[in-house]
Amino acid sequence: MIIICKKSAKEAEIQDLLEILSQKGVEPHPIYGETETIVGLVGDTSKILAEDIEAIDIVKNVKRVSEPFKLANIKFHPNQTVVDAGGVKIGGGNFAVMAGPCSVESEEQIVETAKKIKASGGNFLRGGAFKPRTSPYAFRGLKAEGLRLLELAKKETGLPIVTELMAIEHLQYFDNVDVIQIGARNMQNFELLTELGKCNKPILLKRGLANTIEEWLMSAEYIMASGNTDVILCERGIRTFETALRNTYDLSCIPLLRKMTHLPVIGDPSHATGKAAMVHSLSKATVAVGADGLMIEVHPNPQKALSDGAQSITPEAFDYVMKDVKKYCILEGKLL
Amino acid sequence: MIIICKKSAKEAEIQDLLEILSQKGVEPHPIYGETETIVGLVGDTSKILAEDIEAIDIVKNVKRVSEPFKLANIKFHPNQTVVDAGGVKIGGGNFAVMAGPCSVESEEQIVETAKKIKASGGNFLRGGAFKPRTSPYAFRGLKAEGLRLLELAKKETGLPIVTELMAIEHLQYFDNVDVIQIGARNMQNFELLTELGKCNKPILLKRGLANTIEEWLMSAEYIMASGNTDVILCERGIRTFETALRNTYDLSCIPLLRKMTHLPVIGDPSHATGKAAMVHSLSKATVAVGADGLMIEVHPNPQKALSDGAQSITPEAFDYVMKDVKKYCILEGKLL
Amino acid sequence: MIIICKKSAKEAEIQDLLEILSQKGVEPHPIYGETETIVGLVGDTSKILAEDIEAIDIVKNVKRVSEPFKLANIKFHPNQTVVDAGGVKIGGGNFAVMAGPCSVESEEQIVETAKKIKASGGNFLRGGAFKPRTSPYAFRGLKAEGLRLLELAKKETGLPIVTELMAIEHLQYFDNVDVIQIGARNMQNFELLTELGKCNKPILLKRGLANTIEEWLMSAEYIMASGNTDVILCERGIRTFETALRNTYDLSCIPLLRKMTHLPVIGDPSHATGKAAMVHSLSKATVAVGADGLMIEVHPNPQKALSDGAQSITPEAFDYVMKDVKKYCILEGKLL
Amino acid sequence: MIIICKKSAKEAEIQDLLEILSQKGVEPHPIYGETETIVGLVGDTSKILAEDIEAIDIVKNVKRVSEPFKLANIKFHPNQTVVDAGGVKIGGGNFAVMAGPCSVESEEQIVETAKKIKASGGNFLRGGAFKPRTSPYAFRGLKAEGLRLLELAKKETGLPIVTELMAIEHLQYFDNVDVIQIGARNMQNFELLTELGKCNKPILLKRGLANTIEEWLMSAEYIMASGNTDVILCERGIRTFETALRNTYDLSCIPLLRKMTHLPVIGDPSHATGKAAMVHSLSKATVAVGADGLMIEVHPNPQKALSDGAQSITPEAFDYVMKDVKKYCILEGKLL
Repeated sequence: MIIICKKSAKEAEIQDLLEILSQKGVEPHPIYGETETIVGLVGDTSKILAEDIEAIDIVKNVKRVSEPFKLANIKFHPNQTVVDAGGVKIGGGNFAVMAGPCSVESEEQIVETAKKIKASGGNFLRGGAFKPRTSPYAFRGLKAEGLRLLELAKKETGLPIVTELMAIEHLQYFDNVDVIQIGARNMQNFELLTELGKCNKPILLKRGLANTIEEWLMSAEYIMASGNTDVILCERGIRTFETALRNTYDLSCIPLLRKMTHLPVIGDPSHATGKAAMVHSLSKATVAVGADGLMIEVHPNPQKALSDGAQSITPEAFDYVMKDVKKYCILEGKLL
Repeated sequence: MIIICKKSAKEAEIQDLLEILSQKGVEPHPIYGETETIVGLVGDTSKILAEDIEAIDIVKNVKRVSEPFKLANIKFHPNQTVVDAGGVKIGGGNFAVMAGPCSVESEEQIVETAKKIKASGGNFLRGGAFKPRTSPYAFRGLKAEGLRLLELAKKETGLPIVTELMAIEHLQYFDNVDVIQIGARNMQNFELLTELGKCNKPILLKRGLANTIEEWLMSAEYIMASGNTDVILCERGIRTFETALRNTYDLSCIPLLRKMTHLPVIGDPSHATGKAAMVHSLSKATVAVGADGLMIEVHPNPQKALSDGAQSITPEAFDYVMKDVKKYCILEGKLL
Repeated sequence: MIIICKKSAKEAEIQDLLEILSQKGVEPHPIYGETETIVGLVGDTSKILAEDIEAIDIVKNVKRVSEPFKLANIKFHPNQTVVDAGGVKIGGGNFAVMAGPCSVESEEQIVETAKKIKASGGNFLRGGAFKPRTSPYAFRGLKAEGLRLLELAKKETGLPIVTELMAIEHLQYFDNVDVIQIGARNMQNFELLTELGKCNKPILLKRGLANTIEEWLMSAEYIMASGNTDVILCERGIRTFETALRNTYDLSCIPLLRKMTHLPVIGDPSHATGKAAMVHSLSKATVAVGADGLMIEVHPNPQKALSDGAQSITPEAFDYVMKDVKKYCILEGKLL
Repeated sequence: MIIICKKSAKEAEIQDLLEILSQKGVEPHPIYGETETIVGLVGDTSKILAEDIEAIDIVKNVKRVSEPFKLANIKFHPNQTVVDAGGVKIGGGNFAVMAGPCSVESEEQIVETAKKIKASGGNFLRGGAFKPRTSPYAFRGLKAEGLRLLELAKKETGLPIVTELMAIEHLQYFDNVDVIQIGARNMQNFELLTELGKCNKPILLKRGLANTIEEWLMSAEYIMASGNTDVILCERGIRTFETALRNTYDLSCIPLLRKMTHLPVIGDPSHATGKAAMVHSLSKATVAVGADGLMIEVHPNPQKALSDGAQSITPEAFDYVMKDVKKYCILEGKLL
C-alpha cells in the first residue's frame, strides 16, 4: 500500500501518520520528494482499508499494491481449479457447454430440449425456475415445479443441472441441482454469498452488469471465505454507452482473469448480446479467447418462449454452433 | 407499442403477425412503407413483452410507447406523494435532511452525533447497523446492537431513524426503524423488494450503480405492486468512465423524475462522490435542482471512522452546510 | 511516480531497473516488501512516461503521484484566472451567461434574440455558424455568412460573441469573434489545440463526451503550452449508460476542478440534457455548485429551429430562468 | 419514423402536426390509442431530423425506423466491399494483418521490423509518423521524416503502408502511403472526413472511444458521401467503467456490423487492451468472430519504445501469434 501525502503536509503531521501506521502493525517507509511525500507500507496490510487512511487530513490518496482477494488469487494458488459438478469437470482443460431455455415451461419443452442438447454435445442442462424479472408484472418462472421438471430432464439424459437461486429460502428445493447460478443482479448480495459459502455445491457466479473484475473476484472471495471454493465465474456482458446490443460482451476479461485467478471462467454470449444471431460467432470467440466453457440459450420454439425468446437459438442452430465449437476446442486443446 | 418488421418480411408473414397480435387482445394497425412495415398497437399492451415480440422472425425491433410502470407513474397519479416517517414529512414541499455516520460504532458516537445533527437542523438520523462491504474481510457493522444504539439516539433526540436492511431475515430487528433503506446493490433484489411491499414502513430505495431511471422506477413498482406505496427514491451516484470521484452524481435525474413520478426523490452527495470536500457545493445543487431531501454522512471524527471516513464531514462542517441548505430551501420554497 | 515490480522480479533485475531510472535523472527509492518491491521516484519525473516504464518486463504497474498538467495546475498558480473577453470578465467571482441559438439562421433571428438576451441579463451572445453534425446530410450552418450576422447582432447589442471553430483554416473569418469555442468532438484534436495556442483570443474548451477531467485539463495544457493562457472550460454532459436524457450532466466536476485548476469553468445544461424542460433547474444547480458561468440555448421559435430545437428555450423562458439565476448568483456572491 | 404525441395533445394540435408533416413531403399515418397518439411516417424521411420534430410542443418523442446511413448500408449494397490497398485485398474473404511499431523511430527499427513482419506472414506495415498524444510534453512522432522511413521499409519488403493522418495539411506527405488511418480522436472531425472523401486512397477509420456503432457508420458515410467509398472500419476498444485494461474491446460489434454494412471491419487488440499479454488470445478471437483483419503493434524492443511499449509484442511473439492466426483463418475460410 502506498500513501501519497498532500503538498501542504507538515513534517510533524507526517511523523504522526508514521506513528499511526506503525501502531497498526505495518512498517512505513517515507520517501520525501520535492512536491509530495510518499509512504510505502511493508508488512500485512490486509486489515488496513484505503478509505480509512484517505480520511486522514494530510493524505491526498492511497494506492493499493496487492490485490484484496486472497483465496481466489492465482499468486497464492497457482494451480487451476477444476470443478466437478454432477460428474462433469469444468476448468483445467475441461470445457463445459451449459445449454437450455431461459425459463423451464413444461415437461415436454425441457425434456425434449435436454435430449437435443445432449445429442449435439452439450454437457450441462441450464434452465430457469426462479426468474428475476425487471417488471413485477412479467412471468417469474415455475419455481419449485420448474426444478422438478429439470430433475425429470436430468433423469432422462444424465445432464447435470444449472439453475438460478434468487433467495436463500429457496435452497431447500435445490437438493438435486448440480450447479447453483447466482445472477448478475445478486453478484453483490453479500448475505446470500455468505450463505452459499456454507453449502457444498458448485456456484456459478455471473458478473454484475457494472461490476469491475476486482469486485467480481471479491464476491467469489466472499463465497470462498465462508468455506465453498467451487466457484465458476461467468461473463455475461457489461453495461456501457453502446446500446446496439443488450450489453457489451467483455471477452478480454477472460484472458485477463486467467492471469489473476485459478477459478474457471465461462462466457454467456446469449445474455451478453440478447440476439440469437450473435451467438454463433461469439461462441467461437469465447473458445478462442481461452474460456473454460459456454452458456447458451436454446429453446425449441424461440418465438413462443415465455422469456428472452429474442436471444434463444433453436436446437438445430445449437447443433450447428456446436460443430464449430468442437473444432475450436480441438485447436485450443480443450476437452469437450 | 410499435413493431418494426424486417424489409424481407412477406405479406403473408405480416398477416400472421397481425393475427397473433389480435389474439393477444390488442388492436394492430399496420402502416406499409417502402422499406419497412410498421405495426402500431392500440389497447392494453401491458402484458405484451417487447422481447417476446422481438423473437418473431420477421420482427426487426419493437419500441415501447408507454412507460412500463403504472403505480409509480405521475400520469395516473398526478399528485405528489408525501411520505410521513416517524412524524416527519418528505415530499410535496417538505424537505428532509437525513444525516449521520456511515456505521454506528458506539453509544457515545451515535448519540452525540444525533444531538448535533438535530441542533443544526437535520430532521432524520441515518446510520448503518448492517453494512454491505465489498470485502468479506471488512467491518460489517454492529448489526442488531447497532439498531439498539440508534434507538437510544432516537429516544434522546426524537429524530426518526433511517437504516439499511440487507436481508429480509433481519426485518425482525427493525420494529423501531422509521425508514428502511435498500442499498444500491439490492435495488434489483426482487425477492427482497416483494417482501418489503408487505411491510408498512416507508422504503428509501437507492438507485443501483448502473441502473437506468426506468429500472429504478420498476423496482419502486415492485414494492408498490406488493402493497407498500411509501417509496422514497435516492440518487447516490452512477458508475461511469470518470474515476476522479467515486461515482458520477446524476443530478439531472431529479428534475426528470419530477416529470415521471409522484414519489419523493432525495440526493446523497456523500456516497456519490466519496469525498467530504464535495458535499457542501453538491448539497446546495441538490436543493437547487428541486430534490425533496438530502442524505449526508456526518461523523464526529472522520479520521477514525470504521467505514467510509473519507466521505464523512464533521458535525461542524455539517452545521455550515445546513446554513446554506436552509437559504436554498427558502429560495426553492421548501419547508425544512 | 511509483513503480510496482512483479513478485517474480529477481534482485539483479531490480538493480538493472534502478540503474535505468537513475540514468533518466531521477532518484529511485526501493522498498522491499514480502510480496512486491516498490520503487518510489523522486525528482523531475515529468519526462518519464508511465507507459514506457510499464513496458519493462519486471514491472507490474506504474502509478503517477503528481498531475501531468502544469500550466493549468492550481498548485503552481493559486490565483483564479479571470478571462476578459470583449470587455466582459469571466472567473474570479464574475459570472458569464452565454446565450443564443444553436445555429445562426437569419439576421432577424439573431439580432432579435440578442436583444432579448441582453434585456434579460445575458452578457454573451452564442450562436453557431460552422456546425458539426453527425450526419453529412444535415444542415451544417451558414458558415462565414453566419459570422457576419453575429457581428451585426454584436453591433446592435454590444454583447461579445462566442462561436465554434471547427478547423484552423476558418480562423481567418474569426477576427471579430470574442471567444472561440472548441466543441466536444475536437477536444483532443491536438493539431487544432496547438494552433489555437498561437492565437490571442480566449478559448472555450468543451469537455469531450467521454473524456476524463484529467484529459480535459491536458487539452487545456496543450493550448496553454503553445502560448495562450485564456482558456475557459465548459462541462456539457458526458456519455454514460443512462439514455433518458441525451447525456449525463457531470455537475460534480465543477467543484472538483476548482481544487485542481485556476481556469474558469462554466456549464451547459442545454447540450448536456438535450431537453428544454431541464434547463431551468439545472441552470440554478450550475450556479449553486460554484460555476463561473452558464451556456444556454435560446431560440425565438424552437419548433422551427434548423438544429437542436428540442433543447432550446424561448426568450421568455430564458427571462424566467435568468430571474432565478440572478438570485442564486447573489447567494453565491457572484457578479452578474 | 414514428412520432409519439403527448397524452395532453389536443385533436386540433395533432391535425396541425399532420399538416406540417404532409408539407414536408411525407405521408403521416396517425394511430389513436387510449393514452397516446402515434404518427407513423411513410415516404422519404431522410431530410426530417428527429430532433426538429421533438422540438414541437405536443411531441413526446420520435423514433427512427430506418438507419440514417445509406452508402454504408448493406441493405442497399448487399455485396461485401473488397478494398485493394497497394495490391493487397481486404474484405470479402481476404484477411489483412497490419503490424508494426506504434511510432517510427529509426531506419533500422522500421526496416528490420518490416522484414520480420513479412517473414511471419503480416501483409501490411503500420507505423506512426504523426502521433496524437494526450500530453503536449510527449514525443509526437518523426512526422515527414517518419513517412520517409516507412517508404524505405516498403521498398525493402513490398509491404503496403498504413499510417495515421492528423490534419489535412499533412496530406502532401502521404503520396506513397497506401492506407490513411484516422485515429479514434478524429472519428468525428467532420471537416477532415469531408476532405478525405476527396482523396483516392483507402481510409482506415478507427472507432471513437465512446462512439456508437451508428455514429461510426455515419462518419464512414461522411467520407463516402464526399466520393471515397474505400473505407475500412477498425474496432480498437471503447471506454467503459472497467479500467483493468486500457479499454473494453468490443468484439461483438464485428458480427453486428456484418449485418449492417458491406465495409470491411478489422480489430486492434493492442490498442484495445494496452497490454502485450492480451494480444495473442484476442487476436485469435478477432479471427473467430469474423473480422477481415487485425492490427497488431510489434516493436523489436518494447522496453525501449518511444511510445506505447507496454502494448507492443516482439517480432518473435508476433511470429507465434501468426501461427495461430493462420490456423484460425483456415477454419474461418479466410485468405491470408
